Amino acid sequence: MRIVVLAGGIGGARFLRGLLAAAPEAEITVVGNTGDDIHLFGLKVCPDLDTVMYTLGGGIHEEQGWGRADETFAVKEELAAYGVGPEWFGLGDRDFATHIVRTQMLAAGYPLSAVTEALCARWKPGVRLIPMSDDRVETHVVVDVEGERKAVHFQEYWVRMRAAVPAHAVAPVGAEAAKPAPGVLEAIAAADVIVFPPSNPVVSIGTILAVPGIREAVAEAGVPVVGLSPIVGDAPVRGMADKVLAAVGVESTAAAVAAHYGSGLLDGWLVDTVDAGAVAEVESAGIRCRAVPLMMTGLAATTQMAREALALAQEVRA
Amino acid sequence: MRIVVLAGGIGGARFLRGLLAAAPEAEITVVGNTGDDIHLFGLKVCPDLDTVMYTLGGGIHEEQGWGRADETFAVKEELAAYGVGPEWFGLGDRDFATHIVRTQMLAAGYPLSAVTEALCARWKPGVRLIPMSDDRVETHVVVDVEGERKAVHFQEYWVRMRAAVPAHAVAPVGAEAAKPAPGVLEAIAAADVIVFPPSNPVVSIGTILAVPGIREAVAEAGVPVVGLSPIVGDAPVRGMADKVLAAVGVESTAAAVAAHYGSGLLDGWLVDTVDAGAVAEVESAGIRCRAVPLMMTGLAATTQMAREALALAQEVRA
Repeated sequence: MRIVVLAGGIGGARFLRGLLAAAPEAEITVVGNTGDDIHLFGLKVCPDLDTVMYTLGGGIHEEQGWGRADETFAVKEELAAYGVGPEWFGLGDRDFATHIVRTQMLAAGYPLSAVTEALCARWKPGVRLIPMSDDRVETHVVVDVEGERKAVHFQEYWVRMRAAVPAHAVAPVGAEAAKPAPGVLEAIAAADVIVFPPSNPVVSIGTILAVPGIREAVAEAGVPVVGLSPIVGDAPVRGMADKVLAAVGVESTAAAVAAHYGSGLLDGWLVDTVDAGAVAEVESAGIRCRAVPLMMTGLAATTQMAREALALAQEVRA
Repeated sequence: MRIVVLAGGIGGARFLRGLLAAAPEAEITVVGNTGDDIHLFGLKVCPDLDTVMYTLGGGIHEEQGWGRADETFAVKEELAAYGVGPEWFGLGDRDFATHIVRTQMLAAGYPLSAVTEALCARWKPGVRLIPMSDDRVETHVVVDVEGERKAVHFQEYWVRMRAAVPAHAVAPVGAEAAKPAPGVLEAIAAADVIVFPPSNPVVSIGTILAVPGIREAVAEAGVPVVGLSPIVGDAPVRGMADKVLAAVGVESTAAAVAAHYGSGLLDGWLVDTVDAGAVAEVESAGIRCRAVPLMMTGLAATTQMAREALALAQEVRA
């Protein structure tokens, strides 16, 4: 079985652990979001790709969900002593090495997809991880800063501002000119099932779908496309998805997110049991829906979620 | 009093501590060797400039003579885990931060001299530190590797090979097209005395003098030019200066190094007391010479060496 997963960071990475456990024989291709990539200290940082790589490769800081385990911060302290910021982005020493290798390879002319493959040669994540695009795409968020409307980098909005101010708009800058990375469209075309994990529907999966050709390829793949709601009981399971959903005019409910993807894209949708009341609404919109526990409290729970997603895909297919 | 010092790494840096103590009111400009600069992991590393900066700024690893005190090596370990080398160059985490800041500023378009000034704003070395040139100059050493004659980067010869094979030639690649950095010629022209510390006469001071205009400026400054022998008792005080002296056909003796600089450049020369027998030979070549203790065993000894150098300059002037 060939499974393609469009993944953001923490939610996508943790779901993938369950999917690997639920379908150990499957060939899994992960199309990773790069809209949250950022240049820091002259280095190319790919937070979502790294979260997937570290999580599946056993290097993740488990409690935090991002960054490396057993991390130290000597480089960051020294940079601060030089007065060089930003200080709000927490890069550890081990993590720096990843960005140094990546930046060096990019400077040598390798595309991000080749660099990601090289980094994964160490981490052996058990999936094929491909960035959505080798071209630069940067998610920007329109906010009011001291009375002035301006666009800031997603990481500045998310990490520095902690999404504490309203987002008026979210734009994947550069997406319209970006091409899917080599292998992305091929993997989608060859998939038996396509999964949207409980990642952010706007700044993670939405950004991947904004790369011309990817949304179309998913819609036309002719295989079940099933998703898991990142919203449980009208609130994001983690993170601040509600903030960016508001910016694109979508209610923070499991049903509204399904409708946002739409029946042209999505065939099946899992909502949490607390949202069982939304099943009828989602199904009336032409998307098969089931209510199952969606809290990723551990590998067992996450594995069961993956099984439910695959079962739903089977049901859609039949 | 305005003093210009042409400095390499450890020897130059330690001498400068003594000079600062001997002449606390002097305005000291250090023209630093950049021929040993190297790009590692995509980062610009300037070992000699950093050794001067860390030594005078209180950040040096005292016993080692180079690199940072209280250093850790998480980044290097991670790079090795990625299979990314070289492993023979010992960059610590704190040190990495310096190279990251430098590389970022260079990429932003600042010349190395401006970057060095910015780094020194943190370290406050008490001298004005200027790289010999903003242009790339790389000292290469011609050696036999597995029967084949080839040119390797100075650091590869010095650090990886530990200068264990004979050097057939030493070449400051790029020097002929390099221009002195802004301020270098002005400082030399305005100097009251010019000092060659006990740095390597070939790959440190020799490289600085290879930048067109610097040797001429020193020779024509019309002020005393005094040096301290890095060779004591026919062997380098530290390092492997004898290896590269052989490559340029110079004997490893205090007198031979003085003759290598020549009376057209050098007005005064200090040799160690164990080399008192060489004084007559040096003076017969037209260079005023004195034998004084030249072992930098501590700040007191080094300060006394600096005093002797300034006294010799005064004697030359009178």
